[in-house]
Amino acid sequence: MSQQLINSVKYLIRLSEEEELLLPTLFNRVTLKKNEPFLQEGKVSNHVGFIEEGLVGYIMTRNGEDVHAYFSGENEWLGNYESFLSRQPSTRSIIALEPCVLWTISKENLQKVFDTMKEGDRMGRLIIEDVFVKSSRQVTSLYTGTPEERYYEFFELFQHIQHRIPQYMIASFIGIKPQSLSRIRSRMAKKH
Amino acid sequence: MSQQLINSVKYLIRLSEEEELLLPTLFNRVTLKKNEPFLQEGKVSNHVGFIEEGLVGYIMTRNGEDVHAYFSGENEWLGNYESFLSRQPSTRSIIALEPCVLWTISKENLQKVFDTMKEGDRMGRLIIEDVFVKSSRQVTSLYTGTPEERYYEFFELFQHIQHRIPQYMIASFIGIKPQSLSRIRSRMAKKH
Repeated sequence: MSQQLINSVKYLIRLSEEEELLLPTLFNRVTLKKNEPFLQEGKVSNHVGFIEEGLVGYIMTRNGEDVHAYFSGENEWLGNYESFLSRQPSTRSIIALEPCVLWTISKENLQKVFDTMKEGDRMGRLIIEDVFVKSSRQVTSLYTGTPEERYYEFFELFQHIQHRIPQYMIASFIGIKPQSLSRIRSRMAKKH
Repeated sequence: MSQQLINSVKYLIRLSEEEELLLPTLFNRVTLKKNEPFLQEGKVSNHVGFIEEGLVGYIMTRNGEDVHAYFSGENEWLGNYESFLSRQPSTRSIIALEPCVLWTISKENLQKVFDTMKEGDRMGRLIIEDVFVKSSRQVTSLYTGTPEERYYEFFELFQHIQHRIPQYMIASFIGIKPQSLSRIRSRMAKKH
């Protein structure tokens, strides 16, 4: 059932009856097992998508080690838009951290959304605005944040899904060792 | 003359004759002297804008020191969209690095562009897509880049304006001391 996708789109724009019928035909339902990739680093991204169920992590490689740079859960969009637009190899993998049900869309079909749906461009604008603001906060936090501030930033960005993200991935997002995360957590617990 | 702004918009979308007359009335022409702020850290951003002439730098503060996080020149858009959308205080200042001629637009007038111009949302989508992709590359580079890679990234992002950016700001963008930048530059010069 694609009702969740339609509801999420209707939260952003008005859909005519015809558009409500057309929209799901432009998407494919895809399921991923835990640890299965939606996109692999080094490959060109051909699809972006909507998460009906599950959780994904964005993973980059630094000196052979995984860096967990982002997370998305239900009712959020996923993809590497940079690679998707430019046809350049992706600099990150997107991996299912839980079993996922996704609705994916190709570049060609997304262009149809923009070109044929009355408020298609508005939908695109609002979705990108949202991810851009998050990305922009991440740049700020990477440049200026202390580990404590980055831990708060993690909670602000991922409040809705933080309890489903393993500790070592949170440490990796912040850019510290898991042991340091434990120290920050106990310092913060004492303050409250 | 707002012809440069109109040409830049027409590069992205079609404008009707009426829209071509309407568009400039929604913008204000603003000039900045060198070192004058377009936006100050801690203030809410009320305008975004288009750079007709000049160069700006995005500056954040880390432990009381300036961090130069981004640069924009002629025919590019400027602003802190995060603060502009959310009405939260800006986490960065935007400062004129050269005397600037800008065309600025308020939130209310930008909403008019989106609501009344036929391809207004498309224009917004295309502009945000572009800045999002750059922001996303910056996140990747901050997480995984060595200083050398970040120096290349600087050139890729700011090829068109790099010769106008002082060395200490480039070093700050990369996240190294100016002396280290000199060493990287001489190592790179030997390779080529």
